[in-house]
Amino acid sequence: MGTAMSGAASVAPQGFELRGWSEQRLALVEQALSRWVVADAPAGLGDAMRYAVLDGGKRLRPLLVLAAAEAVRGNEAAALRAACAVELIHAYSLVHDDMPCMDNDVLRRGKPTVHVKFGQAQALLAGDALQALAFELLAPEDEDGVSATVQAALCRLLARAAGHEGMAGGQAIDLASVGQQLDEPQLREMHRRKTGALLRGSVMMGAACGDIGTAARAALSRYGAALGLAFQVVDDILDVTADSATLGKTAGKDAAQDKPTYVSLLGLERSRALAAGLLDEALAALGESGLPDTRALHALAKMVVDRDN
Amino acid sequence: MGTAMSGAASVAPQGFELRGWSEQRLALVEQALSRWVVADAPAGLGDAMRYAVLDGGKRLRPLLVLAAAEAVRGNEAAALRAACAVELIHAYSLVHDDMPCMDNDVLRRGKPTVHVKFGQAQALLAGDALQALAFELLAPEDEDGVSATVQAALCRLLARAAGHEGMAGGQAIDLASVGQQLDEPQLREMHRRKTGALLRGSVMMGAACGDIGTAARAALSRYGAALGLAFQVVDDILDVTADSATLGKTAGKDAAQDKPTYVSLLGLERSRALAAGLLDEALAALGESGLPDTRALHALAKMVVDRDN
Repeated sequence: MGTAMSGAASVAPQGFELRGWSEQRLALVEQALSRWVVADAPAGLGDAMRYAVLDGGKRLRPLLVLAAAEAVRGNEAAALRAACAVELIHAYSLVHDDMPCMDNDVLRRGKPTVHVKFGQAQALLAGDALQALAFELLAPEDEDGVSATVQAALCRLLARAAGHEGMAGGQAIDLASVGQQLDEPQLREMHRRKTGALLRGSVMMGAACGDIGTAARAALSRYGAALGLAFQVVDDILDVTADSATLGKTAGKDAAQDKPTYVSLLGLERSRALAAGLLDEALAALGESGLPDTRALHALAKMVVDRDN
Repeated sequence: MGTAMSGAASVAPQGFELRGWSEQRLALVEQALSRWVVADAPAGLGDAMRYAVLDGGKRLRPLLVLAAAEAVRGNEAAALRAACAVELIHAYSLVHDDMPCMDNDVLRRGKPTVHVKFGQAQALLAGDALQALAFELLAPEDEDGVSATVQAALCRLLARAAGHEGMAGGQAIDLASVGQQLDEPQLREMHRRKTGALLRGSVMMGAACGDIGTAARAALSRYGAALGLAFQVVDDILDVTADSATLGKTAGKDAAQDKPTYVSLLGLERSRALAAGLLDEALAALGESGLPDTRALHALAKMVVDRDN
């Protein structure tokens, strides 16, 4: 499974099979999402919410939550709630991003986007309601065996990752950057917020489901930050190298929209080297965490960098 | 201060002056909002967020939070955070409501709406970021003297009030109801969610800042529900009876948009009687709460029904 992009640190963890591990967890996540994103929200709102969330996506963020939670032997009920909550935030951001006043996308994963199918007003509301539902999932009344301390920590981490310091702030930079020349630190800052914050947030939410020391937490934060940036660098590479069919979305879109990317800034080869370096950074951080079993986190980081879509 | 609309139960509480009480609390709320809604969110996002929140509105929801928190002798730091959080949710809902795909309003409180001033994409993001910030305020890291139990309870109450069971669900019904004949139960259900849930939620969030019994909590819930519906009935009355200058928004808009209202359904006199009855219900619930000092809640309910804008 080693590739030309990854160094010695990224040898696949022995005796660990990501596909089987993921399939088991994804079954739980899909079931939970289907239970929690209710169809009975009024006046078609529930249909739009379910359409936005169910049956789609790689579910990378939920898998990161669950992998981190397992690495810290965290509370399983809390981890499943956190996994679903972070996916709801991701899903709402796609619904709003696709709207005509933003990216004006009509297709996502080969299906009409939410505003095409349900109208712009319903899409706006569905996104808003999905964000609220994410926080509702994190703070259940019956507590589900999840302590108030963990509930509050999860709300804090998700709010920061989603808001102006994180995803929404990154999107604002993205809006302002079309046609602009960004340098590498500016591009990095945009992506740190826009996609990195929620990916790192997923790892930290998983970690918050257990009880670990400051050093392990800091190591997981470094892992999440490196993985988050690597994800975006690879996205930029795939936008240039993959075809639309493999990608499941329109390839070459960044260049067509005159958006700054790692490839436009660094070229393809240096972008690949950057991704490989970030993978090594992420895996080194896992080693420094002192946690006994980080195999799933290890395999997910490799998958992020080695993926072809 | 008694009016023709309110019965014996609504005599103004002795020795209590709402204006002075409100002014003191509003100063704290404005100061806290200005501190927490930061200008340094990137790429103009902070400016749009502050524009949406600061220097505007009656701040009824924050006052309800603070009045309920005082009635239960709740934690003051928690109450101030809850007061601001609920106002952020209200503010974000106005930003999104005003957008072209929803109500397409260009003026609010005599100023250009957020999307007119900052563009639709920034307005969408500002609303999204304000919702996230609301939850961030409720779960501070340093805890600010606020226990995790209170933090989690506040997140739960706000998420439910804002989401598909509450405000967003009510807006979906509202969208679907234009040009429709709703009967009174349907109209009540729409308003229970659309505006009632956040008003009742404000009361319950204030109550969650303290430690009270089930009966007192249930009484405050009845108070909040009655006040929430009364607010909307009075809104419908004022839309017909007030002029735009007094109202600070376009009068007669509901009828022009063919939206179902209490006045269109019941007529003016029966709507006034309904508002008076709901005020009596709210005040009776305060009496049943067993709480020693509910004067601010009492005065706020009267203000909601007696207001002329």
